[in-house]
Amino acid sequence: MYDKITLRVRYADTDQMGMVYYAHYYVWFEMGRNEYMRKAGVPYIKIEKDGLYLPVIESYCNYKKSARYDDVITVSTWISDLPRARVRFEYNVCKQEKVIAQGYTMHCFLNKRGKLVSPAQGLLQVLNNLKEGSSVNAG
Amino acid sequence: MYDKITLRVRYADTDQMGMVYYAHYYVWFEMGRNEYMRKAGVPYIKIEKDGLYLPVIESYCNYKKSARYDDVITVSTWISDLPRARVRFEYNVCKQEKVIAQGYTMHCFLNKRGKLVSPAQGLLQVLNNLKEGSSVNAG
Amino acid sequence: MYDKITLRVRYADTDQMGMVYYAHYYVWFEMGRNEYMRKAGVPYIKIEKDGLYLPVIESYCNYKKSARYDDVITVSTWISDLPRARVRFEYNVCKQEKVIAQGYTMHCFLNKRGKLVSPAQGLLQVLNNLKEGSSVNAG
Amino acid sequence: MYDKITLRVRYADTDQMGMVYYAHYYVWFEMGRNEYMRKAGVPYIKIEKDGLYLPVIESYCNYKKSARYDDVITVSTWISDLPRARVRFEYNVCKQEKVIAQGYTMHCFLNKRGKLVSPAQGLLQVLNNLKEGSSVNAG
Repeated sequence: MYDKITLRVRYADTDQMGMVYYAHYYVWFEMGRNEYMRKAGVPYIKIEKDGLYLPVIESYCNYKKSARYDDVITVSTWISDLPRARVRFEYNVCKQEKVIAQGYTMHCFLNKRGKLVSPAQGLLQVLNNLKEGSSVNAG
Repeated sequence: MYDKITLRVRYADTDQMGMVYYAHYYVWFEMGRNEYMRKAGVPYIKIEKDGLYLPVIESYCNYKKSARYDDVITVSTWISDLPRARVRFEYNVCKQEKVIAQGYTMHCFLNKRGKLVSPAQGLLQVLNNLKEGSSVNAG
Repeated sequence: MYDKITLRVRYADTDQMGMVYYAHYYVWFEMGRNEYMRKAGVPYIKIEKDGLYLPVIESYCNYKKSARYDDVITVSTWISDLPRARVRFEYNVCKQEKVIAQGYTMHCFLNKRGKLVSPAQGLLQVLNNLKEGSSVNAG
Repeated sequence: MYDKITLRVRYADTDQMGMVYYAHYYVWFEMGRNEYMRKAGVPYIKIEKDGLYLPVIESYCNYKKSARYDDVITVSTWISDLPRARVRFEYNVCKQEKVIAQGYTMHCFLNKRGKLVSPAQGLLQVLNNLKEGSSVNAG
């Protein structure tokens, strides 16, 4: 499974080069990830309420074309890997159907006391199904 | 008493108009306020550790001249008012000794459960001394 | 005339108090203003392309209730005043139909060389109609 | 050659997990890069004034430990590679002398019209000397 969100570039997101500032793409990744999890039936806010946190331990972005003020942007998100006690989300950022950036974030699972843990079997199953679905749909 | 911090405008702070984005001045206010409290012997991190929070309930800024990438900026901070269970900080933002923006933030006091409270007598005394000192030094 | 946008609070917008950081409301104001101008037939990107800039010269926000991660927020925008060579936008930020913040931004008009100017008669007429409509609809 | 800057974590940089939001490290990278170039005698603002832009085409960060509000952070920056018409900066983010994050940014060179170009021989020489120095000092 993958999910697509649409957003519009704000003046706040631009810099004096007239393009979206590079760090801002990572906020778009978060927006994509958030809606993806909600659609999958495991909204991140619910996961946190259940006492599990998914901090980012690695992030990467490759910028191909610039995004500019007032552009309409889509972000597609999917789960590409689920190694032991981690999950990797991938993102395609598009403008008028063309990929302008690609990236990923790798997350670990922490409990409330900040200890590394494995997610509950139920969540793990959902994430795994999402990953399997991704390999079909995004392939 | 008042305090002055110096900072440099980052590319991240600019927008495509080539100036610092207007919301960003409020982050500078926070930086000014934070160092002011530290110099006054009551660092905000200590106040929070003691279970008191000072959320902003009002903010205002008047922009006179633009700030640009790589500009060296100073922010002067002082306490201008201390009405019942609130505190008001004032800020002067300068570039090459000229005021380019002025503003204020008004804060209330919350305890850990989010209830409005009065600060402890000790903190209140410190804030009041700061305010009295402000009226002398900044007058 | 007034216009309403809907947005969702992102993790990026929160701070360690668990609320939306106060400066961030001003970015929401920009989002509201941007869609308002588009709906009114004078998108800001078009205004800039015609060589006119509307930098913020004053901003204010009054925070009544907190906004939190994943909250659905609406921002209503209208023009409340149109003094000589300036325009003032007002904003209501709501959560579940309740106003959680209110504010305004005042803008001047600059040409490409950064000189204060009056907007063209056509734009002025549009803005004035919007203001008149606001007093009816938002009243 | 490498350069080290020191900064303090602001409330604005934190999120509700009580840590610095992951995208924010890239703003720190910019701060490190900016001072590094200044120390090297080729401030980025000067490069842009000469008509050359260095947009980010790739960015990466690996997060090992969290940074928190009011922490004192250092960012060390150096040039690790200088492939044809590109430059790669590396960053170490430390807290109390311990590395809490590491990353890099890859940049290309654009002229004013947005065309890919090679930097002037003079700048290229400076960057190459910096890279050579890096391999000695940071090695």
